[in-house]
Amino acid sequence: MTLSRLSFIISFILSTASISGQKIYSPTLSLQREDIFGDPEHAVSASIANEFETFFFNQTLDHFNYRPESYATFKQRYLINSNYWAGANSSAPIFVYLGAESPIDGATTIIGFLTDNAAQFKALLVYIEHRYYGESIPLGMSFEEALGDANVRGYFSSAQALADYAAIILHVKQNLKARDSPVIVVGGSYGGMLASWFRLKYPHVALGALASSAPILYFEDMTPQDAYYSVVTKDFKEASETCYQTIRDSWSEIDRVAQEPNGTSNLSKMFKTCKPLESGDEVKSYLKLLYARAAQYNDPPRYPVTQICSGIDGANTSENGILGKIFAGVVAYNGSSTCYVNPPTNVSQTSLGWRWQRCSEMAMPIGITSNSMFQPQPFILSNFTDGCNYQFGVVPRAHWVTTYYGGHDIELILRRFGSNIIFSNGLRDPWSTAGVLKNISESIVAIFTEKGSHCLDILVEKQTDPDWLVLQRKAEVEIIKGWIAKYYADLLAFKQ
Amino acid sequence: MTLSRLSFIISFILSTASISGQKIYSPTLSLQREDIFGDPEHAVSASIANEFETFFFNQTLDHFNYRPESYATFKQRYLINSNYWAGANSSAPIFVYLGAESPIDGATTIIGFLTDNAAQFKALLVYIEHRYYGESIPLGMSFEEALGDANVRGYFSSAQALADYAAIILHVKQNLKARDSPVIVVGGSYGGMLASWFRLKYPHVALGALASSAPILYFEDMTPQDAYYSVVTKDFKEASETCYQTIRDSWSEIDRVAQEPNGTSNLSKMFKTCKPLESGDEVKSYLKLLYARAAQYNDPPRYPVTQICSGIDGANTSENGILGKIFAGVVAYNGSSTCYVNPPTNVSQTSLGWRWQRCSEMAMPIGITSNSMFQPQPFILSNFTDGCNYQFGVVPRAHWVTTYYGGHDIELILRRFGSNIIFSNGLRDPWSTAGVLKNISESIVAIFTEKGSHCLDILVEKQTDPDWLVLQRKAEVEIIKGWIAKYYADLLAFKQ
Repeated sequence: MTLSRLSFIISFILSTASISGQKIYSPTLSLQREDIFGDPEHAVSASIANEFETFFFNQTLDHFNYRPESYATFKQRYLINSNYWAGANSSAPIFVYLGAESPIDGATTIIGFLTDNAAQFKALLVYIEHRYYGESIPLGMSFEEALGDANVRGYFSSAQALADYAAIILHVKQNLKARDSPVIVVGGSYGGMLASWFRLKYPHVALGALASSAPILYFEDMTPQDAYYSVVTKDFKEASETCYQTIRDSWSEIDRVAQEPNGTSNLSKMFKTCKPLESGDEVKSYLKLLYARAAQYNDPPRYPVTQICSGIDGANTSENGILGKIFAGVVAYNGSSTCYVNPPTNVSQTSLGWRWQRCSEMAMPIGITSNSMFQPQPFILSNFTDGCNYQFGVVPRAHWVTTYYGGHDIELILRRFGSNIIFSNGLRDPWSTAGVLKNISESIVAIFTEKGSHCLDILVEKQTDPDWLVLQRKAEVEIIKGWIAKYYADLLAFKQ
Repeated sequence: MTLSRLSFIISFILSTASISGQKIYSPTLSLQREDIFGDPEHAVSASIANEFETFFFNQTLDHFNYRPESYATFKQRYLINSNYWAGANSSAPIFVYLGAESPIDGATTIIGFLTDNAAQFKALLVYIEHRYYGESIPLGMSFEEALGDANVRGYFSSAQALADYAAIILHVKQNLKARDSPVIVVGGSYGGMLASWFRLKYPHVALGALASSAPILYFEDMTPQDAYYSVVTKDFKEASETCYQTIRDSWSEIDRVAQEPNGTSNLSKMFKTCKPLESGDEVKSYLKLLYARAAQYNDPPRYPVTQICSGIDGANTSENGILGKIFAGVVAYNGSSTCYVNPPTNVSQTSLGWRWQRCSEMAMPIGITSNSMFQPQPFILSNFTDGCNYQFGVVPRAHWVTTYYGGHDIELILRRFGSNIIFSNGLRDPWSTAGVLKNISESIVAIFTEKGSHCLDILVEKQTDPDWLVLQRKAEVEIIKGWIAKYYADLLAFKQ
């Protein structure tokens, strides 16, 4: 088990931590896989990923106010690769990756859409780190200090992040005298939401956006709260009906065993946990999020859902019955290890940072009511609010995202407003339930695959990629080429 | 001379006040005339103007951050007239006036575009006060207290104001269950900028915008700094070549007289000033802004520029020579009064509030370099900055407006992005030089008149309105009808 794998698993466990007696169940909204680093199959554009230079921009702390503190600045990190750029004189394009809820380190290795297409677009590549992650933390603080200070973390918001991106992109363009170079922003997951919102709010900065797996409709009542877990369920059911049944039956079995004398201890043994379990709920939370994660990142060629189900279906039933099967699923997913479920690790920035973002503004109501292989766990806003208030002293602004960015009746609203956004999705990704899956206008389009997983299209190309994925990426590239061609024609007419 | 006239004149004088040795010359960006209250010609829709009910909304102090202080709320005032509204069931439209840099009192009497068209559109009318003006001042403070506190005035920004409008409009729609009612926002001058920006930033809240006399391009280098005063000059020259020459020659004459023994005292007598002048510059500043004001608000049927020139051209030349003529212009404009130039009065909210807004973000570079009947007075950013720093302790964010709202290459940018904005202008209005005067796309259009003045089209209809003004308004109404008709068709298709 690699270090990165460990840190991802712990981020799952943490996101079910009991706060003020209220569990905040939260599937991670992140595009990073645990096993992506060091995968030899990812070698295709690995050399490009190493050609980046690191810069720091003197960023304004608070773009929207003019209080004395608003004028404070901090160093925001961004990475540039200009080796493939045809230059300002030919108005060659600029591809910008909008960093999301993690440090930008490694993004150039993971997000292949920019590096894989740099040569054919002759594009400048820019990867910008999101404020409060990695090395882009205000006031010279550590991540923990910044998140621990109510006044400092208060500037950690999506609107500020978008303004940061605008300021950096304009700065880069000015430095390179590349005023006429069209900018295409790319983002995935939360970063995909940022990319689509960026095109809508800053059309004068970005010509278009590729918003991969952006669940922009998972707010208020726009998407049923159980949409996410109903797709997790569907993915498992489609992989194997018996596997689905086993998982479905396993929760009450865990409850039953946990309530026996020495039940928690027995569970610990059954699951070879790294340290003794505190309750049966601990293993349930782990499994729930393991399945969510497998469904979300159900990437070819490995297909973790199939992998888990092979473990479950293929297990020797004589050993520990249902729970023996479930454990076989865990082993199939994780590989052979000395222990499972609760290995020691550190809290990741992604885990803590995203919890703050959910509690302040990204108040996505995700719950389980029915249509599920899981036990019901409805999202109750007041419980969520209590948890946020307890941990951060804030009440989530549950209506802000739709007030500032919209979302309701999006087909009606954007039918005659805006342009040049690709909403890409894979329908096996549970987040796709809150994505845009219909073309809205000629140039605000939905590109999805039946078998795709979370943000798959913007990851680095692999030799093993299935045809449908190759075709999806090709379609996206063609659309972006079309935007740029139209822009160059407009530019020519405009300059005359 | 009425009270309102006095207060306007003083706001002009104040905007040339010497700060830290630097003069900040600033024509008022406001749509309110001094003589509009109580004008019997404005009686057409006067009764509608009295049918409004006042409400207060619990507004969030800081929409963009999540600091503890951000969650403070204040009472924001808005006015509603529902007498003409056909109701939510028929998805009847909502017209919203976006208040600008003054209290909302009186706006229902002045801004006739809404009241005059309420019946034919069967529209709900809403007038919203801009934060920090009138009764919409945060933290229970007086206007002076709020503007005097660096932390409090720091939340006084255009982005916050737009978010305020979004929150109130959504609140009103929800209360009235009028989710499908299309919203048209209307604003003039700075409020016109807000209206166009609101449509761009909140297309899910407003279907379209009428942006009257909105100088959205008077930022950075998008408009030559002397554009404003070159139109003032042109207006006077077109009214009377001799008047223009007299004004042109008058500045050095004032300088000459002021430098004589007892010069300032003699000038005070010549101009019958209300209190002794402190310098010749005081009368020059007064005159400069008087002419600017006359040009900006050169409304029919009075046409103040013609009025001033009649005074100047018709004066008895034997009395005080050039300055006697100039004084005759002052009298022609102001009418008979006991004294002129510097009557006692109070600082208006508009004057002080707008100075803050210019110093923080609306850093419009307005100066005089050439092509002018005035003495050169170039805009020098460092001087402006020094003045702002001295008065408010802030450095203007001169690039923020174009970063957040755009403006550069606007025809190129909005050609394929956005819809439903009318940019209306009158070409005799000096602010029109920074307005949008070309159609950008099928539905982002420019409607201007050769003879029009500042925000004339959105003022209350008068029986004496010239044909070109009646036609301009009619064109605007037809365009808005077209937007709404298209929206209803889309809505019908969307609901099926």
